[in-house]
Amino acid sequence: MEQSFLAWLRGRQANLPQVKVGIGDDGAVFVPQAGKELVLASDGIVDGVDFLADQHSLAEVGRKAVAINLSDLAAMGAEPAAILVNLSLPTRSATEIAAACYEGILEICDQYQVAIAGGDITVYDGPLAISVTAIGHVESGQAWLRSGAKEGDSVLVSGAFGGSLLGRHLRFTPRIEFARRLRAIGGVHAAMDVSDGLSLDLDRLCASSALGVELDMEAIPIHPDAGPWAEQQGGTLLEHALGDGEDFELIVAMEPKAAQRAMAAEAALPEDVRVPLTKIGTLTGRTGLWMQKTGKLERLSPSGYIHGEQ
Amino acid sequence: MEQSFLAWLRGRQANLPQVKVGIGDDGAVFVPQAGKELVLASDGIVDGVDFLADQHSLAEVGRKAVAINLSDLAAMGAEPAAILVNLSLPTRSATEIAAACYEGILEICDQYQVAIAGGDITVYDGPLAISVTAIGHVESGQAWLRSGAKEGDSVLVSGAFGGSLLGRHLRFTPRIEFARRLRAIGGVHAAMDVSDGLSLDLDRLCASSALGVELDMEAIPIHPDAGPWAEQQGGTLLEHALGDGEDFELIVAMEPKAAQRAMAAEAALPEDVRVPLTKIGTLTGRTGLWMQKTGKLERLSPSGYIHGEQ
Repeated sequence: MEQSFLAWLRGRQANLPQVKVGIGDDGAVFVPQAGKELVLASDGIVDGVDFLADQHSLAEVGRKAVAINLSDLAAMGAEPAAILVNLSLPTRSATEIAAACYEGILEICDQYQVAIAGGDITVYDGPLAISVTAIGHVESGQAWLRSGAKEGDSVLVSGAFGGSLLGRHLRFTPRIEFARRLRAIGGVHAAMDVSDGLSLDLDRLCASSALGVELDMEAIPIHPDAGPWAEQQGGTLLEHALGDGEDFELIVAMEPKAAQRAMAAEAALPEDVRVPLTKIGTLTGRTGLWMQKTGKLERLSPSGYIHGEQ
Repeated sequence: MEQSFLAWLRGRQANLPQVKVGIGDDGAVFVPQAGKELVLASDGIVDGVDFLADQHSLAEVGRKAVAINLSDLAAMGAEPAAILVNLSLPTRSATEIAAACYEGILEICDQYQVAIAGGDITVYDGPLAISVTAIGHVESGQAWLRSGAKEGDSVLVSGAFGGSLLGRHLRFTPRIEFARRLRAIGGVHAAMDVSDGLSLDLDRLCASSALGVELDMEAIPIHPDAGPWAEQQGGTLLEHALGDGEDFELIVAMEPKAAQRAMAAEAALPEDVRVPLTKIGTLTGRTGLWMQKTGKLERLSPSGYIHGEQ
């Protein structure tokens, strides 16, 4: 099926200038923008771990495989340009599954003008798995690293947290356009996206920058989905916001005045465009996560999803 | 295991200038060479389809996952620069399997000075699968496409064909250095690597260029492994050379005088460096594969491995 499927895929794709030669040769020819650096991200999802093929729409599954990688590019401050997709398909109904997944892949690629530069397909005796590599452009030296945060930086988060497994983990908006607006404002020292849990990922950002954070626990934006999810699973809303993960929102460490400007600018946007932007803490020299509690600082243990622990 | 494993991997890797920020952030920062284009290739291998984890050395399996992608870069005339690796690991012994595969991945990356720019790991209820994306540099406009062959071009092949499943499919040399020498000679109009079968892949190259080929069947180089493999499987040596696949040699369409120069230059190299280079036919305007037989042309049906047919 591979050859005929790839021919179908070629026909469905828009021609984009960044890819001179696309699917159908031994490799694709990609034209990088002069003077820019590239950000490369690669992440896969697997049936039974990251989604459930018998419950979720396969178009949404395909979309998610791309979106998690676009989220990584956004977290690096990069503009997406191209992806490569490796599909591992269970033998039964392989072609139908591939076509259904690609509906979502094509849709999100069209939305963000991302070229599909490669598409390998394997049919095997195993669960549906989609592995995606994404390539984006960033101005030379301007990528947002986890390690760049400075003491005194404001810690901002986009959106709200918790209960993403109710469905948002499949349908979230990768923060590409929001990251573009932050770049225009400037003053971003570090960023990352929340895949494993707000507190766990924030702890990693702090560790990369050899800093800690003093959190304003009451400011942490809790998603409406956290309520019904907590009712199903137990635990408090805050625990779910801190540890559920798969929110795919951005944590940003920003120079405090730029952070103020960013929040004001975002709030001034039309409701259908703006992304809620909240200051949840300040970076400090004392490593670890800290919270104010009855007048003194207490240490918060990071919680979230640790890959490869089952 | 993912975080600690990736930390181990970071420590094992050489620092290479093309990757400014490697594993450990949301993405890697890659510095493209000024004025060049990039070739992107992505291909995966799966236990039970492309190797047998209980029979093959996992280091060789890891090496193969990289080598098949380097072979694609060589077939495009590109110099490899970086790879990204997605490992899907069966739950049992996940860490040991990952470490064993990476022995081979690190070895071949070291050999060709390729940076590991990303390394995602998923533990799941399925067979070992390794998906690799490779990135290489090529002079602007100089990538070797399947579609560039011209009528009258000589068709050359590197190496010899058949019986690769006896073990060569795991241990082949991707033709990176050979491709570099061909670039220096010039006159290459089209190229591809043989993964699915010499006749099937040659037929694809011809179709992409809207040409056909007149083959000199006696010139087709048959690998010594074709003999024992034919004894096991039945069939003639030539049938195995034409259809076995996984040889990962190059088919090259070259301007005839440049082809002569290339064969002479290769033959003049020391034995441990040179790659056998053989002219097996000439490209013609009449599409399809053709062979001389008792004085007239007969059509040859392409044979090989069709992906996704089981």
